[in-house]
Parts: sequence; structure tokens; C-alpha cells
Amino acid sequence: MTGLQADAAAPADTVVVAAPTVRPRIGWLDDNLREAGWSIRSAVAAGARLIVLPELATSGYVFATPEEARASSIRADDARLRALSRELPDHAVAVVGFAEVAGDQLFSSAAVLSSTGVIATYRKTHLWGDEPRFFTPGDAAPPVVSTPIGRIGVAICYDLEFPEVPRSLALAGADIIVAPVNWPVVSRPSGERTPEIVLAMAAARASSVPIVISDRGDLERGVVFTGGSCVISHEGWMLAGEPRSDHLVMASINLAAGRSKAAGNHNNVFTDRRPDLYPRLLHQ
Amino acid sequence: MTGLQADAAAPADTVVVAAPTVRPRIGWLDDNLREAGWSIRSAVAAGARLIVLPELATSGYVFATPEEARASSIRADDARLRALSRELPDHAVAVVGFAEVAGDQLFSSAAVLSSTGVIATYRKTHLWGDEPRFFTPGDAAPPVVSTPIGRIGVAICYDLEFPEVPRSLALAGADIIVAPVNWPVVSRPSGERTPEIVLAMAAARASSVPIVISDRGDLERGVVFTGGSCVISHEGWMLAGEPRSDHLVMASINLAAGRSKAAGNHNNVFTDRRPDLYPRLLHQ
Repeated sequence: MTGLQADAAAPADTVVVAAPTVRPRIGWLDDNLREAGWSIRSAVAAGARLIVLPELATSGYVFATPEEARASSIRADDARLRALSRELPDHAVAVVGFAEVAGDQLFSSAAVLSSTGVIATYRKTHLWGDEPRFFTPGDAAPPVVSTPIGRIGVAICYDLEFPEVPRSLALAGADIIVAPVNWPVVSRPSGERTPEIVLAMAAARASSVPIVISDRGDLERGVVFTGGSCVISHEGWMLAGEPRSDHLVMASINLAAGRSKAAGNHNNVFTDRRPDLYPRLLHQ
Repeated sequence: MTGLQADAAAPADTVVVAAPTVRPRIGWLDDNLREAGWSIRSAVAAGARLIVLPELATSGYVFATPEEARASSIRADDARLRALSRELPDHAVAVVGFAEVAGDQLFSSAAVLSSTGVIATYRKTHLWGDEPRFFTPGDAAPPVVSTPIGRIGVAICYDLEFPEVPRSLALAGADIIVAPVNWPVVSRPSGERTPEIVLAMAAARASSVPIVISDRGDLERGVVFTGGSCVISHEGWMLAGEPRSDHLVMASINLAAGRSKAAGNHNNVFTDRRPDLYPRLLHQ
């Protein structure tokens, strides 16, 4: 085995990430899954090796009834979800938001796919707005998943607005955090970014970890989505996606750059922590 | 006692806050203390009832030697610090960064003053850059201080960049967080805010708590300070201070608005937390 082959098998330090959007239609589950496949395929063709699709990409978001949400849900081991992994070359990963059914319960979930199939799923733990009408919150913390391209932390939408979540993912060793989201437009002063992006930029810098967000940018049953897909560096700066992203957002990220957690010549955003002073965080 | 008098004695829901800057000179301790008094007096005259001065406002920052830092330090019960409180009317509060000496140790501290004197002090717990050459980190968590105008959370400069700190202060009941800082200019992409402000905006919104930052904007021994003084609403938006603040930053803040922690019609940034999922935060 040559050195070149060994390098090819090791996780790359630099990865091209993409956040293609989708426009799912509620009730058109098979069409939505097919569109998800096309989105992954086009991102792969453009060179991406980490592809993040929005929250509930296969189902749509604005359900009228629990029955409609149930009809839009699939099991985590559904063959159609597994089929999406066949769009991926070796050493590539996709993260796809989907409505998951498990027995009597529905979850807003994310599947982590490699060319070998579904390698992990995560069930959203912080539910927003009307979501509790349709979904049960997950009871397992957002995970860090070892993949062919590195350790990927996964959070879904509102999860990311709790500073505890991206911080915990980074402390658990995430090289990068990915967040499938559905961000309805919220009010903000003229000239400001949508506030969810401000929070994500801060989370990235605070923990020296890059973040990829995949949002919708379309209109569904009167809800306008923000089009907030973006790629944020480990220093908290925008690499791609501004100001509004309706289509394919892409950037190259150096996963090694954030790993030292260094801040200037003297500081380190992890070892400078004083966890003995933070007991309040574990209380409700 | 009339209702009007009772109202006057209760904490006001709306408070005018000010972050006057100062330009201390190392070695000119008495002059610096006098300038701090003038800054408080002018902010009070302008209507402010919460006045925040920068970190190390009475000493300067860029010390050459530990001996110089020691000569610039005062005890927390120094009469000259207490004298600053006499600039305050009833129902007003000032927070002043100072170099504190206590036995053999020096601390980068903040004093919370009311018209009755020094009501609390806090010793910076997260030290930045060269500061460990001069200062010992405090061993008590950033405090929430009950004052005539409300519960004030206090953090100093680098403290605020740990998401755990503003979150813990808000969870401990802070109506407002104040942060004396000395922010040397750091690189940032064109058109972006200084990153410390991005982190502060995110911290304010994440915990629905307003934040007041008092920075220096001058030049000291080759270090250029950012002039980042600002007032941030509980929704994370700039109320005053942009883009660069060399003098007196002022705004009126409704302290009641952030207290419900409501986010939209269905959510609450505190009760939606899942502390059972955050155990990693208490580990180093």
C-alpha cells in the first residue's frame, strides 16, 4: 500500500461542504425523497463531500393535522432513506432531515448517511412552535457521529439556539456541526442578519468549530422560510450563503484549523473554561 | 405613603444605562480615579441610572511589569473607590473595573457601587493574553447583585466569551448583564462587527437578557482598543453604540421585557432547556 493510498483513506483535513435546499410538498413523500436524491447527486457532482439537507426535507413542515404528519413520516430503516446513500461516493456524507415514525410516535429526525447506508439518526430534542402537536421530543442528546470525513455533530433547528447544544457537541469532539433547519422569517432590524445566524456565528467562534446550516427558502402554506443556508468558519465568519440562499450553498472547510481550540498565542477556548463555576447550567 | 412614593422606591422597569469610556494612564492612579468620578457624574447628569465603566478603568491595562500593576492597584475597601459612590443619586448604580490588591495577589475586579458605597465586587475568572503575568483569576463565579435598579449580572471582558457565563448569570436571575471590557482590536472581515459583539448579541438573545458593554477606544502603549461600548436589547439587537464608541454610549432599557423569557407564542428560552442533556458542560 502506498502513502498516497493511505492518505486517501484517512479523513481529509479539508472538505467541501454543501447545503442544497429542497422544496418538499406535503403529501408527496415519494417525490420529496426523489428530490432529496437529486439534491445530493447535484452537490456531489459539484464536488461536495459533506451535504446537508434541511429539516424535514422529505416531508415538508407546515402540517395541518397529526394524521398528515404521520402520512409524511417514514421509519429510520426505510429502504427509500437508505437509497439516498447510494447517491454518495466513498468518503462522503449526507445529513438529511426527515419525519420519523417509530411505533405510535413521530420525531423530527436527521439521518447521517454514507455510501454504506444510514450510519446514525438523531431525534430533535428542543421542539419549537406547533411542533409538539406533531412530534415527540427525542430523549438522547445531539450526537457526534464518526464518519469517513470526520466527527460530525448534529443538531436540528431550534436545538442550535441553546448555547448548551453546540458547546456540548464541540466539547464531545465534533470537527464540524451540521444543522438541518426550517427557519420561518422572523422580524429583525434593517441591515441585521436573521438572529439564528448571529447565534450560529457566535457558537462557532466560542467553540472554534465550523457550522453548516441547511435551511429552506421557499413558501409553504403561508410560511415564508428564511433561506438562511450558510457555511460558517471556526472563527465565526461567513464562508458562503449570504445574504439569502435559495439554492446550493458551498464552501471548502479546513477541519483541522479549528481543532487546536487556540485563541491567540496564550488562550484556548476549551482549557480556559472554568466548569467548576458553571453548576447552574445543569438545573432547570 | 402614597402610591407614587411606593413606585419611586420600587425597582424601575425602565432604566437609562450609560457606558462612558475613560482614558486611564498607567501610573496616574489618582488622576484615573478622578476621571472615573467625572465620567460617572456626567452620565448621571445626562440621565443615566446604570453607569458601566471599562475594565481596569482606574489603572490602565498594558502593564510592563508586575510591580507596575501592583502600584496601580487598590484594595476593594479603598476610600477613593468608595468616594466614587458619592457621584450617584439614590436608585442609581455604577460598575467600575479596577485593579484590586488583596495581600500578595492582584485581581482584575469590578466594583458595584450605589449611593451607599461599594455593594459588591467581582474578580475576573477567565484571564486573557498576558493577564496571568499580573493577575490571579478569581475563584468565585460571576455574581448577580441585587441593586436599587434590579438584579445586575457582572462579567469582565473574556468571561463573556464563554457561553456558560452569560447563560449562568441569566439563569441565576440577572435582569441585565454588565461587562466592563478592554478589547484590543482583532482582525475581522470587512463589514463585520468585532467578534466579541457578535458573541454578546447572541448571548443576549439566547437568554432574553439585555447586555451593557463598556470598552475603551483609545491607544495605550501600542495597543488599540476597539471602542466597542454598546447596549444590546434582550432580543439581541443594538440599542446604542455602533459602529465605534469613543465617548458616552446611552440607551433606555426595559428590564421587564426580557424577564418572561418568552420566545414567540409557544416557547420559552429557559423552560425549553433540556439540562439532562448537557452533562458535558461541567467537564473540563
